[in-house]
Amino acid sequence: MGAAPDAMLAAVFTRRDPGAVFLRTPGVPVVPVAEAPEWQDRIDVMILCGGSAADLPIQTPALASYFTLVDSFDTHEKIPAHFAAVDSAARRAGKLAVISAGWDPGLFSLFRLYAAAVLPKGKSYTFWGRGVSQGHSDAVRRIPGVADAREYTIPSKSALDAVRHGEEPAGNLHTRECYVVPENGANLREIEEKIVNMPHYFKGYDTTVHFITAEEMRRDHAALPHGGRVLRVGKTGGDTHRMECFLHLDSNPAFTGGVLLAYARAACRLAARGECGCRTPLDIPPALLSPLPPEDIRASYL
Amino acid sequence: MGAAPDAMLAAVFTRRDPGAVFLRTPGVPVVPVAEAPEWQDRIDVMILCGGSAADLPIQTPALASYFTLVDSFDTHEKIPAHFAAVDSAARRAGKLAVISAGWDPGLFSLFRLYAAAVLPKGKSYTFWGRGVSQGHSDAVRRIPGVADAREYTIPSKSALDAVRHGEEPAGNLHTRECYVVPENGANLREIEEKIVNMPHYFKGYDTTVHFITAEEMRRDHAALPHGGRVLRVGKTGGDTHRMECFLHLDSNPAFTGGVLLAYARAACRLAARGECGCRTPLDIPPALLSPLPPEDIRASYL
Repeated sequence: MGAAPDAMLAAVFTRRDPGAVFLRTPGVPVVPVAEAPEWQDRIDVMILCGGSAADLPIQTPALASYFTLVDSFDTHEKIPAHFAAVDSAARRAGKLAVISAGWDPGLFSLFRLYAAAVLPKGKSYTFWGRGVSQGHSDAVRRIPGVADAREYTIPSKSALDAVRHGEEPAGNLHTRECYVVPENGANLREIEEKIVNMPHYFKGYDTTVHFITAEEMRRDHAALPHGGRVLRVGKTGGDTHRMECFLHLDSNPAFTGGVLLAYARAACRLAARGECGCRTPLDIPPALLSPLPPEDIRASYL
Repeated sequence: MGAAPDAMLAAVFTRRDPGAVFLRTPGVPVVPVAEAPEWQDRIDVMILCGGSAADLPIQTPALASYFTLVDSFDTHEKIPAHFAAVDSAARRAGKLAVISAGWDPGLFSLFRLYAAAVLPKGKSYTFWGRGVSQGHSDAVRRIPGVADAREYTIPSKSALDAVRHGEEPAGNLHTRECYVVPENGANLREIEEKIVNMPHYFKGYDTTVHFITAEEMRRDHAALPHGGRVLRVGKTGGDTHRMECFLHLDSNPAFTGGVLLAYARAACRLAARGECGCRTPLDIPPALLSPLPPEDIRASYL
């Protein structure tokens, strides 16, 4: 991990056959996840890479009993329940866990909080995409009969223009587009119904479903670009102010990996102070994300 | 202060004749700053509004002996010295002081830190303006023979384009433009020399000085708009990512007031925990800026 001078990949835990997992970093053990508890004294912090729909709600509380850890749980509506489960497990074990460390939730959450705190009389809007949502793609892949899937989230141009002009946008801020490779003999109509009515993920959105072949998926949908922007327009007296945060990511998972790694560093530091329980990026002093000492942080970034 | 339900303006301290200070908020005492120490048990937090060139280096350490306080000290190169002076005074008195709580330093510092932490292989650039820099205007006004002054900081378009395309910009990122009302009989050439050679503020920049009348100043330069953007372009493996933070402010002082008030809230909370010494926005958990309780913060912003 050349980008993080203070981090070293200690092991990779997997539910797959460890022999079938090939790593770019030589010499790193690949271990069945069931054996993870045996590693609890050999790992400073564990980064959880599972999906928010079915993996993390179980994995994060379970592993928080053994490890300082970080996840990027991203089902916004279920964060309070996830926080409570992880907080309870981590406190019981005296461990420190950071959840929702990605870019949304994560960096965009931070911007929403800062913007609302400094400009309280205003309104914030978040636009995602155009990009592949891994959480939504993952949710579609879990539907029986689906072999593979990609979901693109697309910002509505008219909504974005309205917000920039300080107006209330009419209708939804986004549309959703799914590309699905069905299994042989799958009931396509049933899959489509399941997608468009999936609560938290698709229900209430204008969702289009396209069925494609595995070859088309490989050819046209291999990259995982994403991005988006948070806007806040607000007033102080008669003056109007606009705040905007923008991300354009060639690869959502690679960028999210960078966020997870920075919060893994912060988690280690909080644990070293003896803190325990669940935290989110909103709780964590920004300086703890940097490998630099405090004087250098002030000189470099202030 | 309708925008901050948990704050109340307790008093205004001034170096001027208190009788000559008129406030929009009725019933608030205006007090000579020399009497400030007598108010130390009647004020939760003091917001310092002085200039960074000559006021805050003296006022912040002096007042940190009596009050929990916040300033928006903005001479980037002198922050380490200011931090040390304030930290020492605040620790001796067991008080908590937050410095550099504005938008740059402040919100832009936060973005630079977060961006570098999550995307370590990259480079950040900060562009200011076009807008009035109060710090620079203030510095010009302190030159003998200057009756009034406004400085505009202007981003270089070619530099901005280069950064967006992942290239190294050639030359300075900004130019500076000063509008100066001279006192009767002042030596204009001497004033201009003093401006363009002023270390930390103008030296090394392409600076233009225009001498104007007091009437032109009132007519053309009454508003204090500002803004700017921080950009970071970086790589993970072969993928490129772009992060950008943008502010457009109708009124720099009104917006900065909002930032100061949010950090005043955080300062009170840190002081209530028994913490003391100097902090910057980079040290402060984001959630402390919000008037909402933790559960509502998670539900609203994550």
